[in-house]
Amino acid sequence: MKTVLKGIVPPMITPLNDLDTLDVEGLERLVEHILAGGVSGLFILGTTGEFSNISYRLRYELVERVCRQVKGRVPVLVGITDTSLVESINLTKKAAEEGAAAVVAAPPYYYAAGQPELIEYYQTLAGKLPLPLYLYNMPVHTKVMIEPKTVRKIAEHPNVIGLKDSSANAVYFRLVQYIMRDKPEFELFMGPEEITADAVLLGANGGVNGGANMFPKLYVDMYNAAAAKDFDKLKALQDKIMQISSSIYTVGKFGSSYLKGVKCALSLMGICNDYMPEPFNRFQDEERAKIRQSLEALNMGLTLK
Amino acid sequence: MKTVLKGIVPPMITPLNDLDTLDVEGLERLVEHILAGGVSGLFILGTTGEFSNISYRLRYELVERVCRQVKGRVPVLVGITDTSLVESINLTKKAAEEGAAAVVAAPPYYYAAGQPELIEYYQTLAGKLPLPLYLYNMPVHTKVMIEPKTVRKIAEHPNVIGLKDSSANAVYFRLVQYIMRDKPEFELFMGPEEITADAVLLGANGGVNGGANMFPKLYVDMYNAAAAKDFDKLKALQDKIMQISSSIYTVGKFGSSYLKGVKCALSLMGICNDYMPEPFNRFQDEERAKIRQSLEALNMGLTLK
Amino acid sequence: MKTVLKGIVPPMITPLNDLDTLDVEGLERLVEHILAGGVSGLFILGTTGEFSNISYRLRYELVERVCRQVKGRVPVLVGITDTSLVESINLTKKAAEEGAAAVVAAPPYYYAAGQPELIEYYQTLAGKLPLPLYLYNMPVHTKVMIEPKTVRKIAEHPNVIGLKDSSANAVYFRLVQYIMRDKPEFELFMGPEEITADAVLLGANGGVNGGANMFPKLYVDMYNAAAAKDFDKLKALQDKIMQISSSIYTVGKFGSSYLKGVKCALSLMGICNDYMPEPFNRFQDEERAKIRQSLEALNMGLTLK
Amino acid sequence: MKTVLKGIVPPMITPLNDLDTLDVEGLERLVEHILAGGVSGLFILGTTGEFSNISYRLRYELVERVCRQVKGRVPVLVGITDTSLVESINLTKKAAEEGAAAVVAAPPYYYAAGQPELIEYYQTLAGKLPLPLYLYNMPVHTKVMIEPKTVRKIAEHPNVIGLKDSSANAVYFRLVQYIMRDKPEFELFMGPEEITADAVLLGANGGVNGGANMFPKLYVDMYNAAAAKDFDKLKALQDKIMQISSSIYTVGKFGSSYLKGVKCALSLMGICNDYMPEPFNRFQDEERAKIRQSLEALNMGLTLK
Repeated sequence: MKTVLKGIVPPMITPLNDLDTLDVEGLERLVEHILAGGVSGLFILGTTGEFSNISYRLRYELVERVCRQVKGRVPVLVGITDTSLVESINLTKKAAEEGAAAVVAAPPYYYAAGQPELIEYYQTLAGKLPLPLYLYNMPVHTKVMIEPKTVRKIAEHPNVIGLKDSSANAVYFRLVQYIMRDKPEFELFMGPEEITADAVLLGANGGVNGGANMFPKLYVDMYNAAAAKDFDKLKALQDKIMQISSSIYTVGKFGSSYLKGVKCALSLMGICNDYMPEPFNRFQDEERAKIRQSLEALNMGLTLK
Repeated sequence: MKTVLKGIVPPMITPLNDLDTLDVEGLERLVEHILAGGVSGLFILGTTGEFSNISYRLRYELVERVCRQVKGRVPVLVGITDTSLVESINLTKKAAEEGAAAVVAAPPYYYAAGQPELIEYYQTLAGKLPLPLYLYNMPVHTKVMIEPKTVRKIAEHPNVIGLKDSSANAVYFRLVQYIMRDKPEFELFMGPEEITADAVLLGANGGVNGGANMFPKLYVDMYNAAAAKDFDKLKALQDKIMQISSSIYTVGKFGSSYLKGVKCALSLMGICNDYMPEPFNRFQDEERAKIRQSLEALNMGLTLK
Repeated sequence: MKTVLKGIVPPMITPLNDLDTLDVEGLERLVEHILAGGVSGLFILGTTGEFSNISYRLRYELVERVCRQVKGRVPVLVGITDTSLVESINLTKKAAEEGAAAVVAAPPYYYAAGQPELIEYYQTLAGKLPLPLYLYNMPVHTKVMIEPKTVRKIAEHPNVIGLKDSSANAVYFRLVQYIMRDKPEFELFMGPEEITADAVLLGANGGVNGGANMFPKLYVDMYNAAAAKDFDKLKALQDKIMQISSSIYTVGKFGSSYLKGVKCALSLMGICNDYMPEPFNRFQDEERAKIRQSLEALNMGLTLK
Repeated sequence: MKTVLKGIVPPMITPLNDLDTLDVEGLERLVEHILAGGVSGLFILGTTGEFSNISYRLRYELVERVCRQVKGRVPVLVGITDTSLVESINLTKKAAEEGAAAVVAAPPYYYAAGQPELIEYYQTLAGKLPLPLYLYNMPVHTKVMIEPKTVRKIAEHPNVIGLKDSSANAVYFRLVQYIMRDKPEFELFMGPEEITADAVLLGANGGVNGGANMFPKLYVDMYNAAAAKDFDKLKALQDKIMQISSSIYTVGKFGSSYLKGVKCALSLMGICNDYMPEPFNRFQDEERAKIRQSLEALNMGLTLK
């Protein structure tokens, strides 16, 4: 992991057959489907991976299976976000044993920590981890922003190598980029796919885009067009990405629409099971029909189940 | 647990020597100190117990030690709040084995669930638990209110026996009380100690008051005075409780002032260690001096270390 | 206004015929209806009075008409909440000319001010007003709490005589009460009617309850029972108030349900027009039928239109 | 105003000598200073113009003076954001009389309206205005987002010609752009200057950037470089803009740092008075020294007072 990571690193969903059982065959298909799209890495146990809703036993099994299947073809990043430092460290040990390249941690998310507490938290965490660490800014779930000055301070630790921002606040993203301008090796990834092109055009490393579970090549192409400043090519790709965001992610109610949409689409595409652990539920017939329609409207030559 | 619980059920802090080690002797002293105050129950692994910041291994050890020490003198309630249903169920099994009386669960706290999702979540949870369940409304940490109509719906499950409200929103509390008026056996506990007397005067079951870690008898006396509608006695007790709230809980910055204040006070009182796991830190000399001063100003005849 | 105000001070709704025209006859009926209930004062141009949604011209007309009609039978309090200090001062001058007893101001509500800014704002305001001033804590609309220490500091100004709290946060109310304990003449009023009894039992001055537009005597009776600690009488009154809150205030969607419910009920009771200025709209047939049903279910002997 | 507006439209600050008096000479200098930078329009009485904190009399005077001075050299846009529809309409009449080109309105900001209420509010407003209307998304102050579907619906009214977004949420901006893709004449302006280049690169009309009060040409150059996709030129301009944002806007505490910084800088540059109406206060010596240092560090050849 000495080389700098660039491009699309999909936050993989977690295929399940029931509350505590992986959909092993679906998982294998999904990993190959994503890698075939030309992605630069794979991020498991993130928000899109429903890390918080599955048991620790299952998290460990997932790390093991994915690392062994990927076998170094791309770097695997493992989400270790937790409210307990001990559990984050334990999971990182497992990730290191299995050959993961790095770990990713959002702030502890029950108590909302103050900025000085975040600095200490991340510096302590970084000091205890056998793998490099990406910060993960995700205020809608964690209730705190990792403020630009806080990022700067935490990044003094040599083990902290980058940040993934899922705040959708582009001013924040630019402020972090500016405050880190004398550390160009510090990697900046954009979460929301709708604004990954924007971020890359002005210098971000790439995107951690959930839609790449379904259409990895589309997002890789978008990244390449943005990195090459090929606006003609970019326009059509960006439009397709906006169409996905405006249709597949907007079917249900509540904050989980995006997640349910992606899982439902992967099920319709015959890749994996769309079971969701509590407190969520997979889409039922009515919503599933809408997702089917949205997928067909994309005109991407899909064969749906 | 067929009889209805009434009175003060302190949410016990978790005495630690370091990140993953209980302060065993401090814990034993603390349990006896609290029980000696005449409390009606003991609630472990709640927000005040920093449940989310300690490892699962340690949570299990704590359940075991506390249940064995209490030995049925009062009912032990165990917090099972988790983002993973599987982990909540596993911890409840342990609690049942050790003789705990009931469990307590706030909504899953990473993704904010919608109200229909909460209903399903709690009904599923209640159906899988070997112990009765209290709902725990804690919106500042979980980002959602368990709305009165949602409480009503969830409470149709026979395994759901009450609610602890820590929202500080007294209108919410009265609305829940009103919507549950035809189920008088449904137990309603108030979290914040500043308004437990108010709640009890108009019919609540009691308080889950953090200050009762330090001064269990004070809170028990307050409960008894409120239950007896003895306003003369209540006035002095309420003033003392407000003095505690306005001094010991306001020393630090950030949301954790209350927690740090209680732990620091218990350390000064010679009861247990005030170590705090990340992302928090115990008070240093300057704040500790202020807590000492505040304790002395209470004139409660304490001998401080 | 040297004597201390106690009891129920209804926040009067503003009867309108259209966007910029008072329902003059309805207004006259409403004022007499409310005064007949034995209230201790009348508060116009508050949140319930939709002060912010009507023109300045109309606000001045309302002050004039109400003060002249009330003619000193009870003190009239005028809401002067504004984002512009100049407009607050101008309206106060009018209120003073017309014989109003005091004014009431929530924090400026476009920019959210910091606590030190609030202190300066209120001290400056108080210094420029020809009438005594009540603070008005209304965080859901103004985005800031007037923190207890801030209240304490502002209240050093002799022109600041009390606070109305509509936060529903009872811990906040008790903390303000405690921090002001050496100034017993500082008046504390509770906004939400569901918890006015609670507040009065432990020492508040009274309630500024919207339901008193419809049923002034019910709220006055509740206040008297609470002040007299007559729990038997209080129980039935409190139940009726909770029934109103759980039925009439919950018909529509969005935050304005309460307001629409009260106006619709007054229209059904034949007292005044229920026109609402933008961005709100009066209830249509379906909701109106539900309000009618709710009113009938109260069994209060009403004759509905 | 039939032609489409593109480029930089500075949200002008309001120069004041005291609470209710314009700094007339400063105002004249400021207008000429901004126009000399090659801006495409001038937006008065926006958030940066502290519209909400000044009296209506002063708002009318400002509209009159600015329109008469600008004399059609660029279109003048007038902020009419208000909680009262009547006041918004009245101010628009004045703006039309004085020759303003359009008006700009954020949602009413005391009560937070629901999305259906917003649709009705804006359609009613648009129907009563003698000038075209821009929507203004400003959730930090108004507590509501004008959701993309709501924008789409409101924009069916022929009088609604564009939107200014100050949410900093770039996903929102892209979703609005996408949902309006079949109405390319609908104008989209970005508020935050840190991300105006991003927005323009992928098709926005321009920026409403507060920094253009100080350095209008810098922002115009940035717009032109972004519109021309001249990344080499853009890089240096964007860096300068980020330096301004990271220094001049971060001196004070609270949300008003940006505003205080801009006003203080303009005072140091000898352009106008930095008086601020309540609840704000101009920077004192210590902060002023920091702003001076920040201005000097920009190396833009300024002569400071």
